Amino acid sequence: MTATIHSISGRPAPSLDPMLALVASDMNRVNAVILDRMQSEIPLIPELAGHLIAGGGKRMRPMLTLACARMLDYPGDRHHKLAAAVEFIHTATLLHDDVVDGSDMRRGKTAANLIFGNPAAVLVGDFLFSRSFELMVEDGSLKVLKILSGASAVIAEGEVNQLTAQRRIETSEARYLEIIGAKTAALFAAACKIAAVVAEREADEMPLDSYGRNLGIAFQLVDDAIDYVSDGATMGKDMGDDFRDGKMTLPVILAHSRGDADEKQFWRQAMLGNRISDDDLAHAKSLLAKYNCIDDTIDRARHYGQRAIDSIAHFPSSDAKSALTEAVEFAISRAY
Amino acid sequence: MTATIHSISGRPAPSLDPMLALVASDMNRVNAVILDRMQSEIPLIPELAGHLIAGGGKRMRPMLTLACARMLDYPGDRHHKLAAAVEFIHTATLLHDDVVDGSDMRRGKTAANLIFGNPAAVLVGDFLFSRSFELMVEDGSLKVLKILSGASAVIAEGEVNQLTAQRRIETSEARYLEIIGAKTAALFAAACKIAAVVAEREADEMPLDSYGRNLGIAFQLVDDAIDYVSDGATMGKDMGDDFRDGKMTLPVILAHSRGDADEKQFWRQAMLGNRISDDDLAHAKSLLAKYNCIDDTIDRARHYGQRAIDSIAHFPSSDAKSALTEAVEFAISRAY
Repeated sequence: MTATIHSISGRPAPSLDPMLALVASDMNRVNAVILDRMQSEIPLIPELAGHLIAGGGKRMRPMLTLACARMLDYPGDRHHKLAAAVEFIHTATLLHDDVVDGSDMRRGKTAANLIFGNPAAVLVGDFLFSRSFELMVEDGSLKVLKILSGASAVIAEGEVNQLTAQRRIETSEARYLEIIGAKTAALFAAACKIAAVVAEREADEMPLDSYGRNLGIAFQLVDDAIDYVSDGATMGKDMGDDFRDGKMTLPVILAHSRGDADEKQFWRQAMLGNRISDDDLAHAKSLLAKYNCIDDTIDRARHYGQRAIDSIAHFPSSDAKSALTEAVEFAISRAY
Repeated sequence: MTATIHSISGRPAPSLDPMLALVASDMNRVNAVILDRMQSEIPLIPELAGHLIAGGGKRMRPMLTLACARMLDYPGDRHHKLAAAVEFIHTATLLHDDVVDGSDMRRGKTAANLIFGNPAAVLVGDFLFSRSFELMVEDGSLKVLKILSGASAVIAEGEVNQLTAQRRIETSEARYLEIIGAKTAALFAAACKIAAVVAEREADEMPLDSYGRNLGIAFQLVDDAIDYVSDGATMGKDMGDDFRDGKMTLPVILAHSRGDADEKQFWRQAMLGNRISDDDLAHAKSLLAKYNCIDDTIDRARHYGQRAIDSIAHFPSSDAKSALTEAVEFAISRAY
């Protein structure tokens, strides 16, 4: 199952560079749409949106739309607007997430809600979300609208599901997978699937959906592992945020389920917010190491990553296919 | 200009009852769609949405869609789903507004954000907003999607504009009109206009848009007057909320502009949040009375109400036209 990823062990570390190079000129067009459409006569809107949008981020989701379209040899330009719409949905979600979590950092910068206030972050998120639908309506494909409005509803459901699971030590791995499948993987899947729609390659819709969905799950699993192993500079947000917020991510679910009675008690209290000092976080990390929970979380990610790669195995070889494959390997390698 | 409204002074007080009766059976269908589509496997979503949606509200906006469709003799049922979509957009906006304002009451009940928390209110708002687009996509009219996605973006811009104007005593009547035109009137206009779209009566789109837009402005003007004259029981929210939030509504704009230096200073300090005791509110109300600011705000509303009525003057007489006309008179009469 992990052969593909093991087979590259002698090569340089996997990288997003091939994908970045592949879509560079398309991405310039997408960025132009993003910059144009985040404008408003109300100055606070481009100020706040620009802080987050211009301020970095990998543009992972629009990049997937562009790379998938390239793999299908799509010759048009409809995907530029739609990739921008995808990024707007993602940005709106980030703005609302940071309000929900009371985040301090995002993409290595002070979170927008701290600078501009929660009210502005909520409302500018709403604006970007509306703008994303305006972009889709301009494109005019009801199929794309259906895919992305459906994904948006699923994302919101996933976020509420996560909120309900927060601080609940009894959260199962199944429920965790349900949550990340909704809050993260649904938009990855939609971003890839719409490339098949604009390219009018109906038979490729499901394979690309599956590629994106599995990559999204792998991506989130690795993110959730990184929260316990990285430092803030690498991650662009504070290490241990999930720990302090009582987020029931897979490393904690595994450590709790494998721990003895005292350790179970520690995790329960930590997730309730009663054990969140730096010493507590150090203890949490020692328990994660004791039971191999980070490595096993990455192994789970590798499983979904392999499924993503297999979903596009039947496509003929191309630079785009190689870049999409390496993007999966990159997503998993980020934890090391 | 106010002749139409004066002419009814000998008759019973204007009422929404004719409109309620006109659309009663259609509204049952709309309510069924609303109840069906606010469901989710995540129990918190229908709980929170139900608190607000099932908990009252006049369903003013979907009612307008239904009444306008009736005036056009539209024989189909597409407007049921679309009216539900309009109500979902409105509900999402209310949920986010209450988070933004830190409201205590809404529709005569404890505001959802106080019961369920701000995070849940933000996310369930996002869910309802996504669901509204799913409903529109099911209907399949790109024209309706364009109207409502455009209105949604304008609403969000209006909300940000209002946030930026908050506590700024120098806000002009022109800017205030721009704000309420966006945050309130845009959805009233869209709710009416889509009736002409489903009825395939293109020539009636602009008149109905104009009816809704002017009614929306009148409606908001009266709401903003009521905040200084009514008690909480009548209004379904706390009196003086706008005063304590430093919201620059027309009564304050007029009183500030007409006041002497001391009075201007009082308003400035009040809007900054430095004079918000019950005594200060009483003083504010005495200044509003001294300069006739409530009556003049209602006069402004009457002007827009008359424009709304004139927008549909050319339609042949019908129960629907009478109900739409009386709805305008009702909107204005609420202040007395």
